[in-house]
Amino acid sequence: MERPGTVTIIGVGLIGGSIGLAIRARNAAYRVIGVDLDPGRLERASRLGAIDCAVPSLEAGVADAEIVVVSAPVTASVALILEAARRGPESMLITDVGSTKARIVAESEADSQARSRFVGGHPIAGSERQGVEYSRADLFQGRVCALTPTPRTPLDRVERTRVFWTALGAKVVEVDPAIHDDQLAFTSHLPHAVASALASTIPTELFAMAAGAYRDGTRVADAEGSLWAGIFLDNRRPLLDALSAFEGEIKAFRQALEAGDADRLVSWWNRGRARRSSYVEPEIGRGKPGKI
Amino acid sequence: MERPGTVTIIGVGLIGGSIGLAIRARNAAYRVIGVDLDPGRLERASRLGAIDCAVPSLEAGVADAEIVVVSAPVTASVALILEAARRGPESMLITDVGSTKARIVAESEADSQARSRFVGGHPIAGSERQGVEYSRADLFQGRVCALTPTPRTPLDRVERTRVFWTALGAKVVEVDPAIHDDQLAFTSHLPHAVASALASTIPTELFAMAAGAYRDGTRVADAEGSLWAGIFLDNRRPLLDALSAFEGEIKAFRQALEAGDADRLVSWWNRGRARRSSYVEPEIGRGKPGKI
Repeated sequence: MERPGTVTIIGVGLIGGSIGLAIRARNAAYRVIGVDLDPGRLERASRLGAIDCAVPSLEAGVADAEIVVVSAPVTASVALILEAARRGPESMLITDVGSTKARIVAESEADSQARSRFVGGHPIAGSERQGVEYSRADLFQGRVCALTPTPRTPLDRVERTRVFWTALGAKVVEVDPAIHDDQLAFTSHLPHAVASALASTIPTELFAMAAGAYRDGTRVADAEGSLWAGIFLDNRRPLLDALSAFEGEIKAFRQALEAGDADRLVSWWNRGRARRSSYVEPEIGRGKPGKI
Repeated sequence: MERPGTVTIIGVGLIGGSIGLAIRARNAAYRVIGVDLDPGRLERASRLGAIDCAVPSLEAGVADAEIVVVSAPVTASVALILEAARRGPESMLITDVGSTKARIVAESEADSQARSRFVGGHPIAGSERQGVEYSRADLFQGRVCALTPTPRTPLDRVERTRVFWTALGAKVVEVDPAIHDDQLAFTSHLPHAVASALASTIPTELFAMAAGAYRDGTRVADAEGSLWAGIFLDNRRPLLDALSAFEGEIKAFRQALEAGDADRLVSWWNRGRARRSSYVEPEIGRGKPGKI
């Protein structure tokens, strides 16, 4: 497959900017166009080398695009996907990076122009930081990127999306949109909610007495609230299920602690430890930059 | 104050080994003796340069000690403190590193020999790793070390403990033992319990879909269970209070999510974010090594 001519990134925040940096570092497209409502963000993205060209209007930005990556909060994605489908060439591929997939895919596929061009995507990498200034060319390297095609998604578009993310160093997996959302409720959305609850529980006056468990356990609580409220609401039912499972674990801990039962506390602890100790973090920065 | 001649570390795990490495890196004592029940651990500590001299018997190890640091699980500390007080010189200082202080200090001060020699201590630094092989000479650098003297603690011993930890790069604070335990329930013991509950909740089959929020939110769940069960039980009442506060935050999240209320979710999130964003991690590795 040839290297795409133009990739247009709609929304040049941390993820969009990192996509641009990764494309340019790996020479994975001829040209990267950035589209954003915020001129300051576009300017910073240009200055950082995340985009070749800043275009304030979506219509102009997608006119010649081979690939459009919608990199916006989940609450904004569908409108941008539909707009890109209306404005761009029939041959284009549209994909997104949203943390939830079922609603975005269903609403996009309900539109015939979008359906023939769109593949849902979610690179499972990120940061509690906002803004293009925290973008990194290696953000996706060695990370999983989930694609969520349905039986209605054109196979050639799935293949092009796979080639695109592979070129940026990601490991592509395909998963049903609803299953993706069920899984991410556990692996990402619940941990974000728990980090925030923990951050709210611990008074700032006690920071002198805090160390690594606090620092790491609350890190992602510094992310943007409206962005996460959108994700939580999109994935309400699966997240409530994950939350119930977590509440069950907290309750088991409370009961063992109230009972003053050391053996029960140890065996409670060891269940979590057995799982955590088998986790191997994806190694990043090992793969070689490739070209499409 | 002159540099102490002999510092004896009872228990050469991660913390004891790091104390030994820090003393030797900073030339903060003439000699470091390691005492441990496990000959393999003593040998590893010697090989790593964490101790000058390995002594299997506590009696022989403390005979000439100016400072004894009991670096054992909280369930074992008091017996070792009392034994060291019986076996060592009257001029000695005994301190410990336990994560809970009220019970350890009360039981130690109930013994007249220990009372005249002992100062409770807790360097607020650590790792989910166990074992002297993970020791680091800079573990305490820039970190808080809490001392928990009571009105019965000899002032000269408090001063010697302060000088000792300052020489290892720590920032010494003094706090009442019960207040220490109330504070650590929030800043450390609760975050450990939450990390473990989260680790138990997330199935290992989903690890491919996990990223930073999982990794950091569960990191400390890989610590040693019996060690943490001991800490939890020692600090049962304050930890139950911290747990109740956390459960309240989780409940508020559940209610906002069930209600599907974006504004409530955002304002819930922003309370945690406001706290977390004001946290500044202690900078380590900046101070200059010093001598007593």
